[in-house]
Amino acid sequence: MAERPLDVLHRTLESPVIVGLKGNREYRGKLKGYDLHMNLVLDEAEELADGQAQRKLGKVIIRGDSVIFISP
Amino acid sequence: MAERPLDVLHRTLESPVIVGLKGNREYRGKLKGYDLHMNLVLDEAEELADGQAQRKLGKVIIRGDSVIFISP
Amino acid sequence: MAERPLDVLHRTLESPVIVGLKGNREYRGKLKGYDLHMNLVLDEAEELADGQAQRKLGKVIIRGDSVIFISP
Amino acid sequence: MAERPLDVLHRTLESPVIVGLKGNREYRGKLKGYDLHMNLVLDEAEELADGQAQRKLGKVIIRGDSVIFISP
Amino acid sequence: MAERPLDVLHRTLESPVIVGLKGNREYRGKLKGYDLHMNLVLDEAEELADGQAQRKLGKVIIRGDSVIFISP
Amino acid sequence: MAERPLDVLHRTLESPVIVGLKGNREYRGKLKGYDLHMNLVLDEAEELADGQAQRKLGKVIIRGDSVIFISP
Amino acid sequence: MAERPLDVLHRTLESPVIVGLKGNREYRGKLKGYDLHMNLVLDEAEELADGQAQRKLGKVIIRGDSVIFISP
Repeated sequence: MAERPLDVLHRTLESPVIVGLKGNREYRGKLKGYDLHMNLVLDEAEELADGQAQRKLGKVIIRGDSVIFISP
Repeated sequence: MAERPLDVLHRTLESPVIVGLKGNREYRGKLKGYDLHMNLVLDEAEELADGQAQRKLGKVIIRGDSVIFISP
Repeated sequence: MAERPLDVLHRTLESPVIVGLKGNREYRGKLKGYDLHMNLVLDEAEELADGQAQRKLGKVIIRGDSVIFISP
Repeated sequence: MAERPLDVLHRTLESPVIVGLKGNREYRGKLKGYDLHMNLVLDEAEELADGQAQRKLGKVIIRGDSVIFISP
Repeated sequence: MAERPLDVLHRTLESPVIVGLKGNREYRGKLKGYDLHMNLVLDEAEELADGQAQRKLGKVIIRGDSVIFISP
Repeated sequence: MAERPLDVLHRTLESPVIVGLKGNREYRGKLKGYDLHMNLVLDEAEELADGQAQRKLGKVIIRGDSVIFISP
Repeated sequence: MAERPLDVLHRTLESPVIVGLKGNREYRGKLKGYDLHMNLVLDEAEELADGQAQRKLGKVIIRGDSVIFISP
């Protein structure tokens, strides 16, 4: 399975990520944690619209079930 | 996994949160409880539209399956 | 986990609730029962549109899978 | 859990029900059977639109996964 | 549970059925097989639009997850 | 259960199929493999729009979760 | 089951793929890893619109739950 998705996620801890969610939402922030369901914890998180910061959320827990992609 | 999502949720008990749900709903309230499915209990809860309080719900149980994000 | 969602639901038995479902449906009624999937039994139930009673359903079983929130 | 949803369903056997499904479909018929997934069997079933019978289906098996509510 | 949904399905083998799927699709055909997930096999299957045959598919396997209702 | 869906799928190996997916996508190709989740492998696959080939994909893995029907 | 979907995926490691997701998103990149849920890791990934590169994402983790097809 070469680079396992959760291993890549683990190596991304403390780094900035873009997270794409169902319903065309995107968040940008620093990855602070995750679990096996791909629930995520971001810090310094911002909600994006068309790539522009739209709302600052600070810390945010994202449910894995809503995640489409995570880009380190 | 560094900061596990459920640990962050646990530390958020008794604090105000914004909860984003599928279908563009958002709730604001004090986090009073949760379970492993991310079912939540909020108190002094308000339904938001465009960041403005639209309806006061008082206590509310939210099904984890509908949750997109929780922002402490 | 402080106030567990199902405990709050249990204490709500025999009390009036508003139940929000996927697809913008809302029901109001007296909570008569539930199970671990959050399937619910309401009595004296009414379907709401914009907060107004639109249809009286009497007793109704609601599938937990459709539930977004339950407000005691 | 007081009145368990499946017990209420069981007592509804042989009685008329309205069943609301995802996608705004509704069916009316006599409840002839069910299983633990809330799959249902109706007899003398009719598809409703705005509360009016639109199509007679006779016997029909409904998948529980599509069910939103069942009103005895 | 009186008439169990899967028993009704079993007695329907070799008989014509209408199958309603998510997304307003309907198929008509002879039920040749099924499994516990309500995956179905139809023969002489036709896709319907507004009750009219629109496309002949011959044999078709339908995933249970898409099924809303099956009417013998 | 008479003709089990997965048995029919097995007998269809190496034959042309049309696969209907959620969101009105359809693919046509030769069935080269499958698994118990109805994940599929097609070869010489084409994406169809209104029954016309729109894009050649060659080999393609289709997730069972997206499949609505498979027509041999 | 002839060519099992996960075996085909395994043989595709280090090769370019197009990945179609729910909601009409498509990604193109080199497959670097996967797991049994069909979570994927792509490198040199680009988001496509109408077959044209729209945004470069570099490395990206895609949740299997969103995947419709993978075309080597």
